Amino acid sequence: MVRSPIPRLCRQSLRISTRMTSSVPKPLSSKAADLHNPYFQQNPNQKDVWTLVNETAANAVAESGKPVTNLGQGFFSFNPPDFATNAVTQALQKPQFNQYAPARGNPNLLSSLSRFYSESYGREVDTLQIQITTGANEGIFSVFFAFLEAGDEVIVFEPYFDQYIPNIEMAGGVVRYVDIQCPEKLKSENVTGEDWTVDWEGLENSISDKTKIIVVNTPHNPIGKVFTEEELFRIGQLCIKHNIILLSDEVYENLYYSQAFPRPAALPSLPELASRTLTVGSAGKSFAATGWRVGWVQGPTDLIKYVTSAHTRICFSSPAPLQQAAAEAFSIAHENKYFELTREQYQAKYEIFNKVFDDLGLPYTSAQGGYFLLVNLSKLKIPEDYEYPADILGKGTKDYKLVYWLIKEIGVVGIPPTEFIAPERRINNPLENCVRFAVCKDDLLLEDAVTKLRKLKDYL
Amino acid sequence: MVRSPIPRLCRQSLRISTRMTSSVPKPLSSKAADLHNPYFQQNPNQKDVWTLVNETAANAVAESGKPVTNLGQGFFSFNPPDFATNAVTQALQKPQFNQYAPARGNPNLLSSLSRFYSESYGREVDTLQIQITTGANEGIFSVFFAFLEAGDEVIVFEPYFDQYIPNIEMAGGVVRYVDIQCPEKLKSENVTGEDWTVDWEGLENSISDKTKIIVVNTPHNPIGKVFTEEELFRIGQLCIKHNIILLSDEVYENLYYSQAFPRPAALPSLPELASRTLTVGSAGKSFAATGWRVGWVQGPTDLIKYVTSAHTRICFSSPAPLQQAAAEAFSIAHENKYFELTREQYQAKYEIFNKVFDDLGLPYTSAQGGYFLLVNLSKLKIPEDYEYPADILGKGTKDYKLVYWLIKEIGVVGIPPTEFIAPERRINNPLENCVRFAVCKDDLLLEDAVTKLRKLKDYL
Repeated sequence: MVRSPIPRLCRQSLRISTRMTSSVPKPLSSKAADLHNPYFQQNPNQKDVWTLVNETAANAVAESGKPVTNLGQGFFSFNPPDFATNAVTQALQKPQFNQYAPARGNPNLLSSLSRFYSESYGREVDTLQIQITTGANEGIFSVFFAFLEAGDEVIVFEPYFDQYIPNIEMAGGVVRYVDIQCPEKLKSENVTGEDWTVDWEGLENSISDKTKIIVVNTPHNPIGKVFTEEELFRIGQLCIKHNIILLSDEVYENLYYSQAFPRPAALPSLPELASRTLTVGSAGKSFAATGWRVGWVQGPTDLIKYVTSAHTRICFSSPAPLQQAAAEAFSIAHENKYFELTREQYQAKYEIFNKVFDDLGLPYTSAQGGYFLLVNLSKLKIPEDYEYPADILGKGTKDYKLVYWLIKEIGVVGIPPTEFIAPERRINNPLENCVRFAVCKDDLLLEDAVTKLRKLKDYL
Repeated sequence: MVRSPIPRLCRQSLRISTRMTSSVPKPLSSKAADLHNPYFQQNPNQKDVWTLVNETAANAVAESGKPVTNLGQGFFSFNPPDFATNAVTQALQKPQFNQYAPARGNPNLLSSLSRFYSESYGREVDTLQIQITTGANEGIFSVFFAFLEAGDEVIVFEPYFDQYIPNIEMAGGVVRYVDIQCPEKLKSENVTGEDWTVDWEGLENSISDKTKIIVVNTPHNPIGKVFTEEELFRIGQLCIKHNIILLSDEVYENLYYSQAFPRPAALPSLPELASRTLTVGSAGKSFAATGWRVGWVQGPTDLIKYVTSAHTRICFSSPAPLQQAAAEAFSIAHENKYFELTREQYQAKYEIFNKVFDDLGLPYTSAQGGYFLLVNLSKLKIPEDYEYPADILGKGTKDYKLVYWLIKEIGVVGIPPTEFIAPERRINNPLENCVRFAVCKDDLLLEDAVTKLRKLKDYL
């Protein structure tokens, strides 16, 4: 699905009792399909990134007869911990956990999260400050619906998680983009998240009296940046000054490798930011179960109640047995130090995977959190006359060619990161030279990828 | 949560690169809570029906020390069949069923549903004609988003399932209401769904050139009516004539007790209606698992693709292990005649429950489908000076008083059905004299309710 070049979604809803006469008559057509909302206009000649990458991978396997190593999409190649899946089986035995959970969420999960956030924030977070949602995605969608009216503006840092944009626009909002600047030196050497810096002037200039929400994603997908206390302080000050809500997407909260993981809802330098911060979390990301669709929004009660209202209308309630299992899993994770162990395992995964790029001298952004690695492949000498299919060329950016070539010639699947940039700024964007790899995979799979990637030395 | 008297949701979304100046400045406030969308304005003095009924029930238990029998909300008091819960446990063992399902849905569930609908419709229904959603609720929400633009109109039959209204309005649509007329004779004798008749003149008058969708719910909640072939033919003809989509909410499709269950997507008298019909189904309703949040929308490929686009943005994907389990459960249900057996069990439940009203001479609508019973209690002589709390009186309708009195004096919980009527038509509506009971409960629970309800004879 590709959105029309200028998505427009002008909505108006009035409860009327008299017959309305239409000012814009329906097109003279008898086809039901012509009735669709033009926001969802489909361009049959443009495939979305996931379809295109997955089809390329499938074709490569069919043609070569050899398997490819898929480090594309950010799902886990391994199962959730046994204590989490066993908790589902337990929950299924009880009638109440197979029926509608309360719209607010399973009370046990609310309690588990209350304890989790109270400990993390160092202050009491009660259950009224949490709304369970059907995955973090629907949580973010609910926040936009709860607060946006037509024409309200939302500031999103670029690169961004791609779902933010339609979620804002479907709620009637207008996106304002602010750059997280790619460090120049990534061309030649490894950098960290701290080297990617907010365009502060751009941020201040983007704030208008229609700005209602600023979205922060920390740890950040795809950069792997953990926002520093100082950065969050500056953003938070602007939120307070201009009466803006901070939406902090922290779905990778249990996967950070930096010394500290500053949270806007508990910022020592700016405690008053908590009263306007909504924090998003995810059981799927925390327990390697992206298919469970259990997420949540945490924030002050006087904001959460509007998120509850929106969520209740969108999904009514979230999967009940999986909520109960997440409640149990949080309790057990607290006992058995699961999150601490997982962090160590992920650092080991990065050690396995990063080494091949170190050895080849291909620079990357060392991840401070999450499970992605953004690698600069501009040093690769791909033959000028290499042939690409029309689908790939049609995308118009170098990273699509890189991803295609990597799948076909090396057998490793990554994602072109210009997908996380607005279309009008993709060409000549520094991300055009990069590919994003997901390391949330079995160590054996990562080692297999490393073996294949070593072949890149022939192209340097 | 109570909507503001005149909900307004004027949305406009433009991707703009220049700074927008606001024409309506934000209110001079520094409170983040003031930023909420006014559509979700909350009236702290008005509780929603579920909160009010559940609180009344809890208070009654606390005061009397005796349990109440809850036939209020339509969830099951018993567990899904073992073959369904065991299928979840099986699915949890496989990594792929714990990770993101494809946005379109689990391929096995799509196949199971393809077979299910092919048999039911008597024609080939391929997997491209199905979109899995996060419960039927999110399926319906996705349909409205896929097709409605600002000011487009949707015709809803009244009484209606309450979620339809905000779901239409959040997508920018305008609701037009058409009456399903309560038969006069329900005051004195039992009726069936066929006695509840569509206001045909009202329906024709409600169609304008902005009408995009007509919503039908068959079997109908709360009436228990199964729309007849003739009724669907008349509605379908209007859809074809005026290029309107028919959204058929058939979540109780496996719970009908009438001789026939005509489906708009397979109407012998009007086969061309299928090309503009979207049919909604629910694994939760079909397998006594309302908490699983697995539903779907079935329809022609050229309509379903827009539902896919909307769903992908709203929830991205639906609960993976529960989708896989639903796929297995459909296959097994096909073998072991589960749906046929369930229908027999429900007919037995109605026999248990209906008898008390037959014996007392309290008329009801004999259900042709679903699991609700709508009983007319106007013959009850409740003391004039009976005292009701302000919450109940504030609702302004007799059915709230009836429900309150039933909980406190009889110990049985029902739902006031004027909740399924638009606020401006609740007073003096025939439903003011009725209470809705859910029979999707253990037989023992139903028998317990019957014993308690026998006490009503003292008030006749």
